[in-house]
Amino acid sequence: MATSKPELRIGLIGTGFMGKTHVFGFATAMRVFDLPFAPVFHTVADVTQEAANDAARRLGFTHATDNWRGIIDDPEIDLIDITAPNALHKEMALAAIAAGKHVYCEKPLAPLAADAAEMATAAEAAKVKTQVGFNYLCNPMLQHARRMIERGTLGDIIGYRGIHAEDYMSDADAPFTFRHDPVGGGALADLGSHALATAEFLLGPVTRVMGDLVTVIPSRRDAGGNIRKVDVDDIGRAFLRFASGASGSIEANWCATGRKMQHDFEIHGTEGSLHFSQERFNELHHYDTRAAPGLRGFTRIEAGPDHPPYGEFCVAPGHQLGFNDLKAIEILEFLRAIAGETSEPFGFEAGLRIQTLVERIQQSARAGRWLNTAAAPSSDRPDAPKQGAQQ
Amino acid sequence: MATSKPELRIGLIGTGFMGKTHVFGFATAMRVFDLPFAPVFHTVADVTQEAANDAARRLGFTHATDNWRGIIDDPEIDLIDITAPNALHKEMALAAIAAGKHVYCEKPLAPLAADAAEMATAAEAAKVKTQVGFNYLCNPMLQHARRMIERGTLGDIIGYRGIHAEDYMSDADAPFTFRHDPVGGGALADLGSHALATAEFLLGPVTRVMGDLVTVIPSRRDAGGNIRKVDVDDIGRAFLRFASGASGSIEANWCATGRKMQHDFEIHGTEGSLHFSQERFNELHHYDTRAAPGLRGFTRIEAGPDHPPYGEFCVAPGHQLGFNDLKAIEILEFLRAIAGETSEPFGFEAGLRIQTLVERIQQSARAGRWLNTAAAPSSDRPDAPKQGAQQ
Amino acid sequence: MATSKPELRIGLIGTGFMGKTHVFGFATAMRVFDLPFAPVFHTVADVTQEAANDAARRLGFTHATDNWRGIIDDPEIDLIDITAPNALHKEMALAAIAAGKHVYCEKPLAPLAADAAEMATAAEAAKVKTQVGFNYLCNPMLQHARRMIERGTLGDIIGYRGIHAEDYMSDADAPFTFRHDPVGGGALADLGSHALATAEFLLGPVTRVMGDLVTVIPSRRDAGGNIRKVDVDDIGRAFLRFASGASGSIEANWCATGRKMQHDFEIHGTEGSLHFSQERFNELHHYDTRAAPGLRGFTRIEAGPDHPPYGEFCVAPGHQLGFNDLKAIEILEFLRAIAGETSEPFGFEAGLRIQTLVERIQQSARAGRWLNTAAAPSSDRPDAPKQGAQQ
Amino acid sequence: MATSKPELRIGLIGTGFMGKTHVFGFATAMRVFDLPFAPVFHTVADVTQEAANDAARRLGFTHATDNWRGIIDDPEIDLIDITAPNALHKEMALAAIAAGKHVYCEKPLAPLAADAAEMATAAEAAKVKTQVGFNYLCNPMLQHARRMIERGTLGDIIGYRGIHAEDYMSDADAPFTFRHDPVGGGALADLGSHALATAEFLLGPVTRVMGDLVTVIPSRRDAGGNIRKVDVDDIGRAFLRFASGASGSIEANWCATGRKMQHDFEIHGTEGSLHFSQERFNELHHYDTRAAPGLRGFTRIEAGPDHPPYGEFCVAPGHQLGFNDLKAIEILEFLRAIAGETSEPFGFEAGLRIQTLVERIQQSARAGRWLNTAAAPSSDRPDAPKQGAQQ
Repeated sequence: MATSKPELRIGLIGTGFMGKTHVFGFATAMRVFDLPFAPVFHTVADVTQEAANDAARRLGFTHATDNWRGIIDDPEIDLIDITAPNALHKEMALAAIAAGKHVYCEKPLAPLAADAAEMATAAEAAKVKTQVGFNYLCNPMLQHARRMIERGTLGDIIGYRGIHAEDYMSDADAPFTFRHDPVGGGALADLGSHALATAEFLLGPVTRVMGDLVTVIPSRRDAGGNIRKVDVDDIGRAFLRFASGASGSIEANWCATGRKMQHDFEIHGTEGSLHFSQERFNELHHYDTRAAPGLRGFTRIEAGPDHPPYGEFCVAPGHQLGFNDLKAIEILEFLRAIAGETSEPFGFEAGLRIQTLVERIQQSARAGRWLNTAAAPSSDRPDAPKQGAQQ
Repeated sequence: MATSKPELRIGLIGTGFMGKTHVFGFATAMRVFDLPFAPVFHTVADVTQEAANDAARRLGFTHATDNWRGIIDDPEIDLIDITAPNALHKEMALAAIAAGKHVYCEKPLAPLAADAAEMATAAEAAKVKTQVGFNYLCNPMLQHARRMIERGTLGDIIGYRGIHAEDYMSDADAPFTFRHDPVGGGALADLGSHALATAEFLLGPVTRVMGDLVTVIPSRRDAGGNIRKVDVDDIGRAFLRFASGASGSIEANWCATGRKMQHDFEIHGTEGSLHFSQERFNELHHYDTRAAPGLRGFTRIEAGPDHPPYGEFCVAPGHQLGFNDLKAIEILEFLRAIAGETSEPFGFEAGLRIQTLVERIQQSARAGRWLNTAAAPSSDRPDAPKQGAQQ
Repeated sequence: MATSKPELRIGLIGTGFMGKTHVFGFATAMRVFDLPFAPVFHTVADVTQEAANDAARRLGFTHATDNWRGIIDDPEIDLIDITAPNALHKEMALAAIAAGKHVYCEKPLAPLAADAAEMATAAEAAKVKTQVGFNYLCNPMLQHARRMIERGTLGDIIGYRGIHAEDYMSDADAPFTFRHDPVGGGALADLGSHALATAEFLLGPVTRVMGDLVTVIPSRRDAGGNIRKVDVDDIGRAFLRFASGASGSIEANWCATGRKMQHDFEIHGTEGSLHFSQERFNELHHYDTRAAPGLRGFTRIEAGPDHPPYGEFCVAPGHQLGFNDLKAIEILEFLRAIAGETSEPFGFEAGLRIQTLVERIQQSARAGRWLNTAAAPSSDRPDAPKQGAQQ
Repeated sequence: MATSKPELRIGLIGTGFMGKTHVFGFATAMRVFDLPFAPVFHTVADVTQEAANDAARRLGFTHATDNWRGIIDDPEIDLIDITAPNALHKEMALAAIAAGKHVYCEKPLAPLAADAAEMATAAEAAKVKTQVGFNYLCNPMLQHARRMIERGTLGDIIGYRGIHAEDYMSDADAPFTFRHDPVGGGALADLGSHALATAEFLLGPVTRVMGDLVTVIPSRRDAGGNIRKVDVDDIGRAFLRFASGASGSIEANWCATGRKMQHDFEIHGTEGSLHFSQERFNELHHYDTRAAPGLRGFTRIEAGPDHPPYGEFCVAPGHQLGFNDLKAIEILEFLRAIAGETSEPFGFEAGLRIQTLVERIQQSARAGRWLNTAAAPSSDRPDAPKQGAQQ
């Protein structure tokens, strides 16, 4: 069948957990959605040619290379998909932007906000489209929650509680990795970034923060067997103030024994509430104060065609999307932005925003004081705390 | 990248809900698993050339046709995938088998067990591989449940409760469709077949049944606006005896207001129990009588890499598979059977088995008596009921 | 403080689990409710004087006796409370009725319906008030469910699923007891009676039944160490038809490993549904088809002052009643009936009704056929089965 | 029946929600437990003689008075039970202690820690026994959780999350009450005190705090219709450090729309975790890292006789205690302390401790800094924040 869709040739850098997830997402998105482009799995890069060849075979790419710069220089490639280690994001993304390519980069955008800012500025200047992988936001139930809030279904928002907790670092024998790097590492950066993205996605900008960072396991062995001191947080917490006047808190925790995917939130409004758990992410629980006395309670809404784009995956409600399907939705939204149909759903500017919030919370925890989140240098000094709703 | 895998060229007949689900499943399976073949989306057939062209474009097939027989006759095609209306399954499958093709057929295999038997016999004679779409069985948690039972984790199995309830027919204004056809229609055939497949998958053969069929809404309007009498069941129930000595029950219900995917079971054994709901199908609840006093209870096991092939989708537990992912696992298992690596996971013989059970329950309900499930004519007369475990 | 309330002097026969529960219930009811009487713990009877003395001390009775007939003959006593073994209920109740006393009798009213009928007739003739202990019905959430059904909140009722499953007999080493007595024993009689009482409480009379009884553990040792054959059911199931036209099923199971209090139901109506579990009996889950698209789902209603008489226990919702509180509500309702304020909530006639249903299901299981539940002898023959809603 | 138990004559001050709950608790405790005393409902005091007479009749007291001092002076009375408004606790308790009576006082012990300290000192000097009403701690499942932690079932405790959220103040039209009094009012004092009591009950002393207080609704009308400015917190949050090295957080919230009893916690240890919700307080969820791979998960432990003193209420597990039953357990424990069998489970010293924590969190929030919780004046200055586990 001839198709009139323009091709979008992908160059993928990195073939680990997230690399595979991206490929699964593209493969699903190509079948499930009527995309504005026909994605083509062009070239995959890995650290050795052998690994790249193997990945190409497994993941269905036509070409393989051990030189990621070759992908960026290849005029046939339209989109650079970066799932390499965080420390390399900046170099790769800046090169891709310089080559005029669209860039899809796994989170975090960069270990430091200053680097992320440079990347965002470059992308803006080059007019390329960018996307950072915050796929939880692509869940139809989160989109639904945001619409409910926007339409006033919950009344005025009073309070927020967010969590992202897992347990992959709760074992003291788990090794020292790049996630423990003092630059850009820690639970707040790794998981709290998700909790913060969800909080702002739902309630709008956070204006003030008070952080709390805890290192639970003070040293770990690295891959070479050497004991390394751990300086980053295993648990990060923050009090939040939103521009809307609401207050809240988040917790990031990678030592939450027993928790595999506790990306949860609870939102209280004057006329209703929501609670949600990523452990059962096809459900959203809604309390409506306007329901009849005796019949009020939290309603367990199951995902279905009423919650787009669920219906593209399955015409029947209650059948459930999977984690990889969320990635497919993220790709749909990015490709629509590339096609100019919509604005970028979560571009480099948004990734910078989250990285900035993470760093402000880290600074606040170190200073033991509330900080504003605005970027202006004058706000860097600890702010006088104020009590009450006006904070 | 050159790949040494043999191609497996697919001809798809039917492009509705299930046709799309199959394509999504193949697309996912190709990326997620190391399949023994390289599936190729060769030709899709629909009732008009225009519809077929459109489907080919959307779903990624190279060719399109309005003549399903052309697909079967096409020597380039290896596997015929049938998602057309139930009444056509037999004709299509027999033609495909006669052409020496492997056949993947949506459930039910055929409206009548006699037809299903003809199909199973033909497939057996032609030595082609077959698969019927009972994808709930492909859930890693159901596979896990079966292994637990086989290994004796639950001790001897005492009792079983199975349900498949949805609510898509609870609205009296829902139209008369092929699902209401007196031949092969009804909730027991449509949904009870899933409940029975799961029951036998977990506990082994059912030997005796006592059925109960209820028509809730006695007439419906068809697409032409004519009032049609409904003879089939909206609710079907059965008491069961298993060859193992266990007893149980199932309920099939398409008027279960509020239920979208209540494919649930509970199994009691002498040393443990399981309960499961498809509404949260990435979880399995296990009670172990050997746990310490004071600490016993149902444990909510979340799907993860400990439950293959979950780990192929995602290396981290708790991230969750979606409904379409179950189809990908079904396809993996079928392709392995085609490659001769394993036996067919749920071939035409198995599809016939379920259809036979459905009909015996229907006969039992009409007779108001227990019936054996064995096919021998001598068992067709109503059996004298016997009380107790020996039943 | 002088009180103008008339005293109601209680004579309690039996001091085991249920005897204590009754006393706890009276003690609570006296404080929580404005009862029409002032209950007085007058005399307690046990099998020896020593046991009776001890019980009196523990439970707060003024007098103790080893002769239950003495209680009945005592002109000071107004109400006879029978928590003795089932086999004695009839003799004790008939004597109490003959003495003109009100009678509060634990379930089952008697091991055989014929005996229960004699008791109900005697009570009716003597114009005394009676009560059988079906305390699950006193749960404010069950009362709420019944009101919702009566008011049409669910539309027309289509289907019903009821369960009462526990695991106290799942251990094959659990001894042979009076509960295994071929007369009046078995899971259906012991637990199914609760499931049937709830079914009729909510949906009205059951008119036809098809039973299924299974003995899982064929012999047990009695207290003397002798092996005794078990003839009664460990699992009892039934299909049901209601006078309203609805159909349903129940399961009684005392070998349900892991289940401690699975007295559950699910009810489907044309405009809504309910599901409930006694494991969390302060909650009722309601689905309303009239809710807005995208916001529909099961609402978890928490018990509160909107669900009388919860507010008498606690002014704040969500604080939860306990099992013994249900008994206090049962006592409130009985005392109101004695005072002539209301009719008996669940008198001997109602207890007879349940016992009759139990026996019809047992007969049906033995006959392997549907039976009508009407008491007329002519209906004792197996009925011709009929399919469909008219059954 | 003569009983050898000494009487314990109760004088109750206050007959509202908590006054009734205390009486219900005594009534239940008297029947359910083998108490060391025979409680006697001697005298009840209310603001008018008429109200007191009415309460005496309803609640079963022999005497009634409008003069609470008369109760304290009455030599017949052994125990003063204070459920009057918080502002009166101190005067009443000090008078009772001076009269040598045991004192049972609802929480908070006093609006200010300084007052609570005076009360605790007086009680200690007078050698009377005291009890503050923190009945959530009396839940058998919380006792069980504490034993599990003490025995090392969870390994070393890493982190803690506690909440006490309800919604009785989320309506802006709810009136200004004593709970909004700048002295002793606010959500942190009212509900956070429970969250803090549970946190220390389970994990031991909190050593450092960082508070966050938010006033959501800045003014309310009082009973006279006058608009009153609200200075106290509607939401109070705190970061916590425990002496054990663990870190955590709590939230107190009385504007948590939809929440009726969210007194919840989650505890992560190196070898296991617990989570609990007061909404289902007969359940405790336990994750054990030592469970077999593939079978791990949170186990829902249902309350039963394995969790004393549940078995005193009911011999069968899963039947569930109610809120008022928790009060009965509190009374059992207090009476055992009076009898000298045990130490006071939660006496005035403990009540003072919680009040002190509340105030330190309030001070911390106002100062915008971490504070130590030790009482020494030198720690009153804002402490230098330190990062990491050693905080």
